[in-house]
Amino acid sequence: MTRNRNSEPNPNNDDNDTLKTPPRDSAGTSGMRLVVPLQGVVQGRGGLILGSLIPCALFYFLQFYSKRHRSTKPPSSSSSSNPPSPSTSSQNLPDLQRSSSRLNLSTRGSNGRVFLSSRASFVNAPNDSPYYIGMDRFRADPYNELDNPDGIIDLGIAENRLSLDLIEKWISSNLNGSMLGRGGDGLNINGILTYQPFDGLAELKLAMAGFMSLVMGEKVSFDPSRMVLTSGATPAIEVLCFCLADHGNALLVPTPYYPGFDRDIRWRTGIDLIPVHCRSSDAFVVNITALDQAFSQARKRGQKVRGILISNPSNPVGNILSKGMLLSLLDFAREKNIHVISDEIFSGSNYGGEEFVSMAEILDEEDPVRDRVHIIYGLSKDLSVPGFRLGVLYSFNENVVAASKKLTRFCSASAPTQSLLVAMLLDAGFIKDYMRTNRGRLRKVFDLFVAGLKQFGIECMNSSAGLYCWVNMSRLISPYNEKGELELWEKLLDVAKINVTPGSACHCIEPGWFRCCFSTLAEKDIPVVMERIRKVVERS
Amino acid sequence: MTRNRNSEPNPNNDDNDTLKTPPRDSAGTSGMRLVVPLQGVVQGRGGLILGSLIPCALFYFLQFYSKRHRSTKPPSSSSSSNPPSPSTSSQNLPDLQRSSSRLNLSTRGSNGRVFLSSRASFVNAPNDSPYYIGMDRFRADPYNELDNPDGIIDLGIAENRLSLDLIEKWISSNLNGSMLGRGGDGLNINGILTYQPFDGLAELKLAMAGFMSLVMGEKVSFDPSRMVLTSGATPAIEVLCFCLADHGNALLVPTPYYPGFDRDIRWRTGIDLIPVHCRSSDAFVVNITALDQAFSQARKRGQKVRGILISNPSNPVGNILSKGMLLSLLDFAREKNIHVISDEIFSGSNYGGEEFVSMAEILDEEDPVRDRVHIIYGLSKDLSVPGFRLGVLYSFNENVVAASKKLTRFCSASAPTQSLLVAMLLDAGFIKDYMRTNRGRLRKVFDLFVAGLKQFGIECMNSSAGLYCWVNMSRLISPYNEKGELELWEKLLDVAKINVTPGSACHCIEPGWFRCCFSTLAEKDIPVVMERIRKVVERS
Repeated sequence: MTRNRNSEPNPNNDDNDTLKTPPRDSAGTSGMRLVVPLQGVVQGRGGLILGSLIPCALFYFLQFYSKRHRSTKPPSSSSSSNPPSPSTSSQNLPDLQRSSSRLNLSTRGSNGRVFLSSRASFVNAPNDSPYYIGMDRFRADPYNELDNPDGIIDLGIAENRLSLDLIEKWISSNLNGSMLGRGGDGLNINGILTYQPFDGLAELKLAMAGFMSLVMGEKVSFDPSRMVLTSGATPAIEVLCFCLADHGNALLVPTPYYPGFDRDIRWRTGIDLIPVHCRSSDAFVVNITALDQAFSQARKRGQKVRGILISNPSNPVGNILSKGMLLSLLDFAREKNIHVISDEIFSGSNYGGEEFVSMAEILDEEDPVRDRVHIIYGLSKDLSVPGFRLGVLYSFNENVVAASKKLTRFCSASAPTQSLLVAMLLDAGFIKDYMRTNRGRLRKVFDLFVAGLKQFGIECMNSSAGLYCWVNMSRLISPYNEKGELELWEKLLDVAKINVTPGSACHCIEPGWFRCCFSTLAEKDIPVVMERIRKVVERS
Repeated sequence: MTRNRNSEPNPNNDDNDTLKTPPRDSAGTSGMRLVVPLQGVVQGRGGLILGSLIPCALFYFLQFYSKRHRSTKPPSSSSSSNPPSPSTSSQNLPDLQRSSSRLNLSTRGSNGRVFLSSRASFVNAPNDSPYYIGMDRFRADPYNELDNPDGIIDLGIAENRLSLDLIEKWISSNLNGSMLGRGGDGLNINGILTYQPFDGLAELKLAMAGFMSLVMGEKVSFDPSRMVLTSGATPAIEVLCFCLADHGNALLVPTPYYPGFDRDIRWRTGIDLIPVHCRSSDAFVVNITALDQAFSQARKRGQKVRGILISNPSNPVGNILSKGMLLSLLDFAREKNIHVISDEIFSGSNYGGEEFVSMAEILDEEDPVRDRVHIIYGLSKDLSVPGFRLGVLYSFNENVVAASKKLTRFCSASAPTQSLLVAMLLDAGFIKDYMRTNRGRLRKVFDLFVAGLKQFGIECMNSSAGLYCWVNMSRLISPYNEKGELELWEKLLDVAKINVTPGSACHCIEPGWFRCCFSTLAEKDIPVVMERIRKVVERS
């Protein structure tokens, strides 16, 4: 379903009251279709009358057409009373549509119905992605060992619940001290209640720079002046995209990629994402030739590519890009005159012993390519505090930093939370202990999960970071295509009552791969999950 | 300067690599310019050759042109190496530019300079508004009685510091209880650390509904299911605008209006704000005839007006709209088929005894006009906690609520802060006491401030809400125009070292009015402020 995503209506289209006018980019084409068949008439049977009157009439017609065309704007996807479906391939999968009903968005018309923007209609279109459908299904019927033992177990959301006890313990002991002033000298009013810089407290930027350096192995340092703090990594990436590309521009994104990017980037910026497909034979690592091809094809279509977006460690695969690969990506960006966005939000959830290399680590101080490099980070994954809403945009381009700081008026982090985090991140003993313990727990549950699947002959991609496994269930699907994959996903959801994310939701080109987040599980849940999977395996 | 704002480049323009291609909307015009003069040749001296060959050549040329045109996109305002200036009238005020230097934004070009989006260039353009220039000047040299007695005193930002002690005291006593679980039964992990609904905790929506009802005089109740919580009122209004209008659409905004709207709404949504000028003779209250005219003029220009945006209590005037006026606005919205956005963020900062009427209060349950009504609220003003970042979007349109909820992925409030606020807002005794005390303090400082100005013969608009006075200094300006107003503003900043907001920054049509926020002052500061103003008054 996601593979047909280029057919999605652009959420930022201008709008109009009628569907009858042609869309903007078909204008030239329509003009040509009109002109070409009439050339024969003029050229073949020319005479004074035909030769001058017909062309003149045509000129008038063209003038009329051009006038009309100028005064009508392209149609809106919201002009119909039904919002557009962001996917067309659902025709092949009628079952998927059962779970979501179309909102009946009314539009402005002669009967005075209320107009909403085409963007709102696009956003309100039914969930097309199994990633979100699965999430909704889980929320409606969540598993609980005691209260709802037949509920759905969620392996869809990348949330780390393995080390919440450590954070809880720290907060219980340090809440008053961290929020009511460092020295117990009463409430630090200016730091919590009043207006603070939209782009984050200076103290938190400093503490965050230290934390990022720590989780990345202390091989790289971060400069707080290049840092912009936001209310989560999602607004960080959106703000960055607003700065790097205009409506209609595109980013290259190696697949499989995090399903949320389609909402994070496409909903409001009007930027297009061009999937660049990676293969299991390459461990789903992108190669420069494929990037180059996608870049050239986009250029041929007249689309401007402004950057490449990677996640490292990869979400959903969980592997880590090599230093050589990072250098090749930089060369590509330099050659093509584009940006590199490196989403490194799982860099501290690295449990496999493989060394993580940040894009920040390989940049030469003098290399002008620095101006094209931007890093996304946040505390939702590595510190297990997604409820805090704390994201980081780190850019080596000072104009991007300047614009992003101003745009944080739309996504400021909350000052009490920032104050709490300053104290937590500066507690070096706690942070080192947390990181070590958390990595050990991730490793343990990952190993148990992988071993559990192996008993059914199901293999996972070799990975060493992130909160998920990338699981190859291709031998369980039939037919061997997206339809088969989604049928297995439905079986897992309906029969096994397990919510996982099918590869197609991540734009994966090879069917049969699934992202399974294991860090929401306690050790004792793993046998329950495996028993449930057994039901589906044995029926396949 | 702000009056020329329609000359600002549209921040969401598509971009291109060159300035040489024609802008999008001139395409049809260029085609016509080409066709018309050649008609004479064809019609007048017609013959077989001229009559058939010239038109054919023209057709080919047109085809070629249309092909070329299709593959080139309109130019970007960022294509120049200097970002666009959002104002042209600054040519009349060269002094203003001294305080802001243009960022040298590089763009993509043959020398491989880094491309940034036209939106980033627009955002990075130097501060054009005295509102922001004054804020920056204050931050660089803030007054402090002991450490910096000659620093700038800020009357620019609408922040209430009069009742911070009450909030401080409550938090000191209740922090642990409010964030570590209601019954002292350990940390409520699920409510603070883990992912929560992006659009806010259900408990906080409920508490907020009660608080809003209370501050609005308990004459209206709010339904939590119509509420969307955000990280401040700024993202609330941006999200709402994304839903109500498309790029290129417009909202009517009675002037004078809050200077921040130009950033809040125009920066990323691409929506235009059409000022509708109000006069001192009407106490700066909008009249329907002026709205009607602005609506018709926009329609003649081919621009679609999607709504009207009011602030009630008015920011910057501080007066309250009557019930009759609200009903007229609803009738206007019904008749024109547009939305009404009512920014009611100062409704609880109502100290004058005049009764505040919310737009929510006058809506008939059965009236379909409800679907067009949306209210913005937040805790930054009435509860004095702007650092918390808590805004409210309240809409009677269920599709707007649905889309806005999804868009809060970009501006979620922080869960620890929400948890703290639930406890605070549910403490009925504290909230009632706070509201009463805060209103009394606002009234007292307002009276002192107005009396202080009166000794110089400076009158304030009769107002009863908000954190500011709307001050008539027109007799101090010379010449009697925007230039004179800005010269007085500069004198206040440079000589008196007081930062106020000139009416032109609020798009006020009459020169000589200034917004002065008094709630940042302690009582003891008022004589200091008045002594400083005396310096300027006596020199005028």
